Amino acid sequence: MSDHTSTFADWVAAIQLRTEGALERFLPPTALAPARLHEAMRYAVLGGGKRVRPLLCHGAGALSGASPAALDAAACAVELIHAYSLVHDDMPCMDDDVLRRGKPTVHVQYGEAMALLVGDSLQSLAFLLLSGHCDVPADTRADMVGQLAVASGSRGMAGGQAIDLASVGAVLGIEELEFMHIHKTGALIRCAVRLGAACGQLELDARARLDHYAATVGLLFQVVDDVLDCEASTEALGKTAGKDAAANKPTYVSTLGLARARERACELHAEAIDSLSPFGDQARRLRELADFVLTRKH
Amino acid sequence: MSDHTSTFADWVAAIQLRTEGALERFLPPTALAPARLHEAMRYAVLGGGKRVRPLLCHGAGALSGASPAALDAAACAVELIHAYSLVHDDMPCMDDDVLRRGKPTVHVQYGEAMALLVGDSLQSLAFLLLSGHCDVPADTRADMVGQLAVASGSRGMAGGQAIDLASVGAVLGIEELEFMHIHKTGALIRCAVRLGAACGQLELDARARLDHYAATVGLLFQVVDDVLDCEASTEALGKTAGKDAAANKPTYVSTLGLARARERACELHAEAIDSLSPFGDQARRLRELADFVLTRKH
Repeated sequence: MSDHTSTFADWVAAIQLRTEGALERFLPPTALAPARLHEAMRYAVLGGGKRVRPLLCHGAGALSGASPAALDAAACAVELIHAYSLVHDDMPCMDDDVLRRGKPTVHVQYGEAMALLVGDSLQSLAFLLLSGHCDVPADTRADMVGQLAVASGSRGMAGGQAIDLASVGAVLGIEELEFMHIHKTGALIRCAVRLGAACGQLELDARARLDHYAATVGLLFQVVDDVLDCEASTEALGKTAGKDAAANKPTYVSTLGLARARERACELHAEAIDSLSPFGDQARRLRELADFVLTRKH
Repeated sequence: MSDHTSTFADWVAAIQLRTEGALERFLPPTALAPARLHEAMRYAVLGGGKRVRPLLCHGAGALSGASPAALDAAACAVELIHAYSLVHDDMPCMDDDVLRRGKPTVHVQYGEAMALLVGDSLQSLAFLLLSGHCDVPADTRADMVGQLAVASGSRGMAGGQAIDLASVGAVLGIEELEFMHIHKTGALIRCAVRLGAACGQLELDARARLDHYAATVGLLFQVVDDVLDCEASTEALGKTAGKDAAANKPTYVSTLGLARARERACELHAEAIDSLSPFGDQARRLRELADFVLTRKH
C-alpha cells in the first residue's frame, strides 16, 4: 500500500477497493440472525463514502511499516465508528436527514428503532475488530482500543456533537468553534492517523509530528466543509445560505467570513505539509491527502 | 470481596456501594466539557439499579482469585453497557418509557438528541475502562474487549433487541423466545460472569461450568421478569395483563402459561446451582445470587 510509483488517484482507488472488501468481510453476513439488522448494518456501511479516514490510516501506516492486514482492521474500525455516527446523526431527533450518499438514510429505509440498533451495533463491531486483529501485539491492541474509545466518546466525537447541539443559534468565537470541531470531526480523523502509526513502529518524535499533521488536517477538513457548504449554496444552488446557515449553526464562514475562512484553510494546509517535512517521500500519500482535503469540490 | 463470613445482604450492599463509587470515579466529572453531556451520563448511571451484573462479576471473581480493582473495571464496563441500553431502549422510537427507577428517563430529562449521545458515549466509556484497567495482562484485556463487544453487538444484546422489535404481535415457540432472550438479556449477564472469571485464573473445565451457570441464570432472570410482570399486573395492579402483554410482546407466560413458566424458573435455578457443584463454598455468592434471581419480588 506504500507503492510510490502509482498516481494518487490510483492509490486512492486501490485503498477504497481494499477497504470495501475488508468491511464486507468484517460485517456480519445477512445469512446470520438477526438478518434484518445485519442487512441494515451493511446498508449503512457498504457502497459509498470517500473513505477519508481509511485513506489517512493507510497513509500513516506507510510511515510506520505497518502490515496491510493490521491497517485494514484499524481503518475499518475507524470507518465503522464514522458510519455509526452518520446513522445516529441522520435520525429525526438529531439532523433529521432523509438522504445520505444519494440513498434514503437508514431510519427512512429501516425505521428509527432499527437505525438506533444499527448505530449501536456498528460501534460494538469497531471495538471487536480492534481487539482481535492479527499482526499487532496485545498491549498495542489494548492501547488502540483505548484511543478509539476516547476519540469516539464524550471527550471526542460524541462530545463534539453535544457541543454542536448546544451551539444552535449561538454566536461562537473562533476558539469555541474550533473546540467544537476538534471534537466533532477532528478527534476521529486524528485517531485514524494515530492508529495507522500504532500498527507499526515509529519514534516518539515522528509520532508527535504525525499527530500534529492529523490534528491540522482534521480542522482543515471542517473549514473546507463550511466553505463548500456556503459556495455551493450561493454559486451553484442560488440560495443565500447553505444547510448549516439555514439550521442556524455557527460555521467558519459565519464566524470568520468567506475570504478569511479560505485563508484559514490555506494556513492549515501549509501547517499540515510542514509537519511532514522530515519524512521525505514516505509521507507522499499524506501530503497528497492534505492537498485533496484542501482542493476537494464536494 | 470473597468474605464468606458476612451475610448475603451485607455482601450485596458492599458490592453495590463499591460499584457506585467506582462508577462515580470512572464517569467524566461535570467540571469537564461538555458539562451537560457528562451530567446526563451520570444521571443515567448513578444512584440506582440492583447492579445484578456487577454482583455476578464479583461473584465469579471470587472463584478466579481476581483482584478487586480489576473486577471493579470489568463490572463497571458491563454495567455501563447495560445503562446505555436502558437509555436507548427508553427512547420514543423504542419502548417510549418516561420513568426509570422512579426518575424521568434521560430523554424526558435532557431531550432525545442528548439521550442518543449519552447512550453512545456510555458504550465508548465501557470499552475504555476494559482496555486500560490494571492488574490484568494485555492479552487478557484485549480478549475481554472482544467478549464485551460480541455480547453487546448484533450477535448479542443489540441483536436480541432487533429480534424483540420484529416479534411484536408474533406468536413465538419456546425455542424462538429463548433465542431472543439468550441474546437480549442473557448475553450481557453471561459476559459479566465471564469477565469476572477472566480477571483471574481458572481451569478450562471450571470456566465452562461457570459459563453454563451464567447462561442459565441469564434465562432465569428473564423468566422471572415475565412472571413478575404478569403477577404484578393481575394480583397487585388489578390489570388483566402487564406491560409486555399490553405491548403485544411474546413472553414466557404468554408462551408457556403462568404455571409452566414458574416451573421453568425452578428448573433453570436447579441447573444453575448444579453447575456450581465442584466449587464448594467459594461459589457461595453465586449460589445466593441464583436464589435471589429466582425469589426476587421486583
